Amino acid sequence: MARTHYFPSDKVHFTWDVGHEPVLAIDSGDTVIVETRDVSDNQITPSSDASVITTLNWDRVYPLAGPIHVNGAEPGDTLAVEILDIHTRGWGWTAIIPGFGLLAEDFKEPYLRIFDLSQGDVTYLREDIAIPIEPFFGTMGVCPAGARAQPVMPPGTFGGNMDTRQLTRGATLYLPVQVPGALFSCGDAHAAQGDGEVCVTGIEAPMYAALRFTLHKGRRIPSPQFVTGGPLTPRVNHAGWYGTTGVGPDLMQAAKDAVRSMVVHLTETYGLSAEDAYVLSSLVVDLKISEIVDAGQYIVSALLPLAIFRQAK
Amino acid sequence: MARTHYFPSDKVHFTWDVGHEPVLAIDSGDTVIVETRDVSDNQITPSSDASVITTLNWDRVYPLAGPIHVNGAEPGDTLAVEILDIHTRGWGWTAIIPGFGLLAEDFKEPYLRIFDLSQGDVTYLREDIAIPIEPFFGTMGVCPAGARAQPVMPPGTFGGNMDTRQLTRGATLYLPVQVPGALFSCGDAHAAQGDGEVCVTGIEAPMYAALRFTLHKGRRIPSPQFVTGGPLTPRVNHAGWYGTTGVGPDLMQAAKDAVRSMVVHLTETYGLSAEDAYVLSSLVVDLKISEIVDAGQYIVSALLPLAIFRQAK
Repeated sequence: MARTHYFPSDKVHFTWDVGHEPVLAIDSGDTVIVETRDVSDNQITPSSDASVITTLNWDRVYPLAGPIHVNGAEPGDTLAVEILDIHTRGWGWTAIIPGFGLLAEDFKEPYLRIFDLSQGDVTYLREDIAIPIEPFFGTMGVCPAGARAQPVMPPGTFGGNMDTRQLTRGATLYLPVQVPGALFSCGDAHAAQGDGEVCVTGIEAPMYAALRFTLHKGRRIPSPQFVTGGPLTPRVNHAGWYGTTGVGPDLMQAAKDAVRSMVVHLTETYGLSAEDAYVLSSLVVDLKISEIVDAGQYIVSALLPLAIFRQAK
Repeated sequence: MARTHYFPSDKVHFTWDVGHEPVLAIDSGDTVIVETRDVSDNQITPSSDASVITTLNWDRVYPLAGPIHVNGAEPGDTLAVEILDIHTRGWGWTAIIPGFGLLAEDFKEPYLRIFDLSQGDVTYLREDIAIPIEPFFGTMGVCPAGARAQPVMPPGTFGGNMDTRQLTRGATLYLPVQVPGALFSCGDAHAAQGDGEVCVTGIEAPMYAALRFTLHKGRRIPSPQFVTGGPLTPRVNHAGWYGTTGVGPDLMQAAKDAVRSMVVHLTETYGLSAEDAYVLSSLVVDLKISEIVDAGQYIVSALLPLAIFRQAK
């Protein structure tokens, strides 16, 4: 009989480590209710200003809820994680953190925006710019084989800090089990984020979620896979999109060029500061590889949903 | 008074070259009706088989309709091209061409699929796999400054072989003018293609289109930009999507890994041959950069729209 477990909110860990003691042991088919902290572990609060960015204690960043031991899981299996429900808890933040982000060389000063999420389904960058709240965990993963105090930030074929915006309510994430018991953890939830997460933060937010776990014995996958519960970007895809491009032999540089052009477009068209344009790009703009096959010159496009503007331009 | 021009279908050119004589001279605000050849310049026909791939005369690939001289256009201006109308003309083809494509090292044999486009809005890879027809020009561009017999295949900041699937009916493409008169050309139309065009071909098809040109004097953009006429992937975004991922320090390798996993997923789940799975990935799967900021480990996702399957799985 499938059970529902309540994950204790005082249990967090800050690294991937095969030695972390499991907090829960569950069976395939069980559901876990979890309430997670924001990625700063409460160092940033609704009353913070940008000065907090420079004094962050990085040992407390990435508090993850876990590990959850899935009985019977072995390397070579796949763990399916259904996001049955996920919901914000009142507020969130987005920051430009010096030294991080796609355009770190352009944005060198700390910058912080606090978002009021009390309306539940939408939050505002400015009174005429509505960002739909589409929450997901930036980090969901199984423990990497042999991990010892492994930092959470870089993801891997075990999942982890995937920052993949499609993993919203109704989606199922498939993770390749690396160690006995799988040792699943999650956290780093985002209330909103575009494909790319270009400024290095989404709307970082404490979160509530219900996750159902199913073990697929003997199903091998090389890296995470997922299926969404429905359409992509359903909240904004009723209107048009504005695209900027980067063209060249290096996808990373092309992505930078596309985002730089988007920042210029947002500042010139909507009167945003460069910082807010960069933040908005991180929250709603999607990076696509338009073509990756044309004689060594590739195109990355950055697409802005026009539905976020009260008067679409 | 804005006029409508009818581009003569016997006029094509095969390279970018500032010396090509303009076929039409138009004013800002004018519309041009154009009927373009498939990218092989009729070397591939509805009755071709894969043997044609190895004997293609590459000097005849990329027949472009143009150049169109836009009166008054100068470097530093932007040329807006509205896709007022675009429609297929009965058939198209998709090929795996040895030495080309994202997975050239995996797919070394020529392969050709002919598609019946007579139904106008949908074509079938298999009787239970319906590909929506969403036509666009793979190549639209202004002549690059100083171009002399420059190959069409690689795109550039002048546009050209952009293979950007969002440029469907209702979209407007903005191109940075490089030479006096702009010298616009187009061709290489696709009846369908996913973000990435991973096998190096979309559904290559002869095409009908009506394009309206507007000159934005003194508006400078560094590379092409565009605005869509409405939602993205409107034909398939009513159902869920299946995602595979590639994770690693190199976006190109991550894209390859994601597409390889998608090919495996398509073969195992739907019983397709590897070749048809690769072709289908090129026609309907979208490559997204999920995150590009996490400590040197990036994620590219390949997303498959489940709506193409008669019985969504």
